[in-house]
Amino acid sequence: MSHDHDTNASEQGIQRPGHPRPAAAQDHEAAPAARILAFLALAELSSFERFSTDAQFAPNLEDKVALGGLAVAEYRLFEVLRQRLAALGFEAVALMEEMQGPLQAFTRQTRPGDWYESLMKSYVVDSIFRDVHREVITRLDEESRTVALAVVDHTAPAEYLHERLGEAVAEDELLAGRLALWGRRLVAESIRRGRETLLQADPEAPAAQIMSSVTEAHSKRMASLGLVA
Amino acid sequence: MSHDHDTNASEQGIQRPGHPRPAAAQDHEAAPAARILAFLALAELSSFERFSTDAQFAPNLEDKVALGGLAVAEYRLFEVLRQRLAALGFEAVALMEEMQGPLQAFTRQTRPGDWYESLMKSYVVDSIFRDVHREVITRLDEESRTVALAVVDHTAPAEYLHERLGEAVAEDELLAGRLALWGRRLVAESIRRGRETLLQADPEAPAAQIMSSVTEAHSKRMASLGLVA
Repeated sequence: MSHDHDTNASEQGIQRPGHPRPAAAQDHEAAPAARILAFLALAELSSFERFSTDAQFAPNLEDKVALGGLAVAEYRLFEVLRQRLAALGFEAVALMEEMQGPLQAFTRQTRPGDWYESLMKSYVVDSIFRDVHREVITRLDEESRTVALAVVDHTAPAEYLHERLGEAVAEDELLAGRLALWGRRLVAESIRRGRETLLQADPEAPAAQIMSSVTEAHSKRMASLGLVA
Repeated sequence: MSHDHDTNASEQGIQRPGHPRPAAAQDHEAAPAARILAFLALAELSSFERFSTDAQFAPNLEDKVALGGLAVAEYRLFEVLRQRLAALGFEAVALMEEMQGPLQAFTRQTRPGDWYESLMKSYVVDSIFRDVHREVITRLDEESRTVALAVVDHTAPAEYLHERLGEAVAEDELLAGRLALWGRRLVAESIRRGRETLLQADPEAPAAQIMSSVTEAHSKRMASLGLVA
């Protein structure tokens, strides 16, 4: 992996027409593009951890294998982002280490109590983060954006989770009530966290407007599960 | 994936020159070749789970990423075995579900207490199981054996673990003592479990002789870490 920091400025820079970031900002901190890619990399590594931890508690081997497969796919996307960061001259892990505090706090605040709560967490959180990331990556240079788009377009986990949660909720009214409640707690924390990510990536982003449409997409997802958001 | 059960007998059969297994035995239970491949698949899935769980408790992001990478590689090997089982007309997960009881019991009996104990567990257990599997797969048909050999020849985790444990043990005498003790408990359980696997795969295998050489290889590994087995 390349640890070369001599890549040219345009490769490291982000595209913000009308909002040129002063060159000085890139000198004493990681370039904004690198920070955005590192946000995504942290989210992928966190999804890998969540799915592989969930696999441990799977009620049967079929689910364990399915969750394991989802975990592996997230790790691969983390690697793709790490490679892009290396190409831009950044060491992903070092960058992520500096930036991981808020995500760690979020993880502590949203510990699931059982198997279904953990599936619900992945469904709610990963979807909201993905919607936020989709906004954030429009600020990337073209090549980084292509890499990042492949990451946010990876919806296989959401499809599995939707199916698995939909079945469970349809069969068990008590569980449905509990998961709706849990979902509300998750969405509050995820929206807060998503907003922070957004503003760190671009302090001038129209956060209220973006987070409102992210929340709306969340409500639609809950409704499609038969839950009230 | 093919679920076709019409594969021919020679493809399902195991090669045991001089010990032809009666055809009847293959009719009412999974063919011995499939059972051996399923043993390996269970061990790979179990390594995947162990490494990804360990990743959660890694002291830093660098180790977390390293362990995640090891976990992903084990899952890939599980998939290779599952594909071979499918080619033989077997559904890996169903077969593994029937056979997983003893491995689950082993996992419960050998719960590590911290990060280093879990690394030590992977180092001791995976190495012993790999040595046993190397014996067991000589009974496979040629194509299955080629697949299985790639699995048992995957020594990247052992190299990482050897390096990581070697450093820790060299720096901390108290830890070295604790890990030596833990290693002794692990080897007792692993040898018992390895012997069971061996005899289930081939009831006529010279178990005492094989397990003695497996134990000797373990002692050499401990010595190379600077520990007394």
